[in-house]
Amino acid sequence: MVLTQWSNGRLPTLEDVAHRSGVSKSTVSRVINGEPRVRAEVADRVREVIADLGYVPHHAARQLVTRRNNAVAVVATQPQDRLFIDPFFDRHLRGIRKELVAHGVQPVLLFLEDPDDYPRVADFLGGGHVDGALLFSLRADDPLPAMIRRLGLPAVFGGRPLLREGEPVPAHVYVDADNRGGAREAVRHLLSLGRERIGTITGPYDQEASAVDRLDGYRDVLFDASPELIEKGDYTQQGGAGAMAALLERRPDLDAVFAASDLMASGALRVLRERGRRVPDDVAVVAFDDLAPIAEFTDPPLTTVHQDIEGMGRLMARLLCEGARVPSVVTPTRLVLRGSA
Amino acid sequence: MVLTQWSNGRLPTLEDVAHRSGVSKSTVSRVINGEPRVRAEVADRVREVIADLGYVPHHAARQLVTRRNNAVAVVATQPQDRLFIDPFFDRHLRGIRKELVAHGVQPVLLFLEDPDDYPRVADFLGGGHVDGALLFSLRADDPLPAMIRRLGLPAVFGGRPLLREGEPVPAHVYVDADNRGGAREAVRHLLSLGRERIGTITGPYDQEASAVDRLDGYRDVLFDASPELIEKGDYTQQGGAGAMAALLERRPDLDAVFAASDLMASGALRVLRERGRRVPDDVAVVAFDDLAPIAEFTDPPLTTVHQDIEGMGRLMARLLCEGARVPSVVTPTRLVLRGSA
Repeated sequence: MVLTQWSNGRLPTLEDVAHRSGVSKSTVSRVINGEPRVRAEVADRVREVIADLGYVPHHAARQLVTRRNNAVAVVATQPQDRLFIDPFFDRHLRGIRKELVAHGVQPVLLFLEDPDDYPRVADFLGGGHVDGALLFSLRADDPLPAMIRRLGLPAVFGGRPLLREGEPVPAHVYVDADNRGGAREAVRHLLSLGRERIGTITGPYDQEASAVDRLDGYRDVLFDASPELIEKGDYTQQGGAGAMAALLERRPDLDAVFAASDLMASGALRVLRERGRRVPDDVAVVAFDDLAPIAEFTDPPLTTVHQDIEGMGRLMARLLCEGARVPSVVTPTRLVLRGSA
Repeated sequence: MVLTQWSNGRLPTLEDVAHRSGVSKSTVSRVINGEPRVRAEVADRVREVIADLGYVPHHAARQLVTRRNNAVAVVATQPQDRLFIDPFFDRHLRGIRKELVAHGVQPVLLFLEDPDDYPRVADFLGGGHVDGALLFSLRADDPLPAMIRRLGLPAVFGGRPLLREGEPVPAHVYVDADNRGGAREAVRHLLSLGRERIGTITGPYDQEASAVDRLDGYRDVLFDASPELIEKGDYTQQGGAGAMAALLERRPDLDAVFAASDLMASGALRVLRERGRRVPDDVAVVAFDDLAPIAEFTDPPLTTVHQDIEGMGRLMARLLCEGARVPSVVTPTRLVLRGSA
């Protein structure tokens, strides 16, 4: 959706946001600048429209400072053996490359695996070979954002950084999916099916912002949910299976689960089947990611929150090439209905 | 094996080659320089020892001309969706990265997918950002070698270039497996089992030098093989199945097959099973590559020619960093015995 908006040749304007939100331009400005004196519902609505349109505040936009290299670094921060089979990275990179190439910019992939790699990668990034960098900083305590800040290199991150208590909000731009909104939609869907005891299998919320946001979305809707209904997983299939078993142990009366990733949901489905629970009849399951082929080939196929990973990659590259100095761009998600709920 | 030799702290010398070959140093020199007046068997023997030791002629070695960037480009020339699932590239890159990093050199991965990419990649390669390049040029008519020559960038290629008739031998260094010697060993093994009607499923010898070399190795041993016993495949499973069917059609009395890749052999096994031929009892099969997990999980598991792909990657990087201006380095292969022959 964001890309449809962005690729019609015209960037969405402040007017578009005001018009679509049904508020004045000055109200939109106040929301963007985080000023008080805006009702929470109005601010939420404006932020939703901003995400929906992929609006980037015009006054803050800036081009890459220099384009002398016509090259941008993409920094991969996983071991190669995981990286090459990671469907997220594959799609992110696909979107990034398409968009950079469309801007005549050469993508340059750097690997950052070991602590030893940091100084060498920093030397290259700071050596005047690239005009900017696209990075993924998903885990807490990642030294990358600070490194980029020190180098003074224009950069866009994929994924909201997870801040420790008291840590300053980083200045860098990031692109993320609307994890919180997607989770809300997932849980609301389960409620709409008449489910009353809805558990959640969370991601590693001590490590990744997406896990925090997806849990927050669950709590937005079920603000009085018992802690018994919440079990932490780790975004893996095995972790999902373990968490499902723990939830069933504590709450055999569970009639629905929101699993914060497709992989965890696939593990949960296996445990539910082993315990003789029918999905969706006894326990409805909604997941998050909509990763092909996982989501379509589970039994039953997963009702899950879709995020446009390739589109986020394109947006990261576009923000870097066309300019942005905004706190973030959050791209919309949507619920895809299949058999599991 | 090459790496064992190379990593003992001392590079093999001309003396080592002469000693191991049982010839004089001047004879070794004549072989290296491609001079006549050396008997074919002697030249073959010397070349085998050179490959076995991983010897690089000392007088020709040179360091990377400049090390001011401490970065080397690795140019990937497949579409991303094939690249990331290609076990060859994965292992090549693993070896390359290990060795570059050990030399304090930053690997920089560039993608070269479309014809449109060439000028942009050439701009980057020629822009003074990297000290050299590692490339894969396996197909005929690839513009990469000429591009690299024009840029004057130190480079090492993975894979012997396939030259068209009359095309000059390129000046660039390449690292390849001993495809011809490996194929010879495969066919000799089938002969040693008493097989008498040995067919071969070749790779695309109009396109890839490895396919030419593996067919030449087959012909070295079976120089009087009937053309009926030779069927061209394309290195895919499906191509192997089609070629196997064609061979059986022409020669139902076939008692062995040398398939020039594991993937083609896996397709051939399927066709043999469908036609009621037992492997290895009725038809023995030897393959080439020893790609995990393919070779180990076919039924029966493949007897196949192993090549050290990660080692070749390391050698490419080492030759670039430590210097080499030799026509080629050919790394040894070895036959791995499993159930299919």
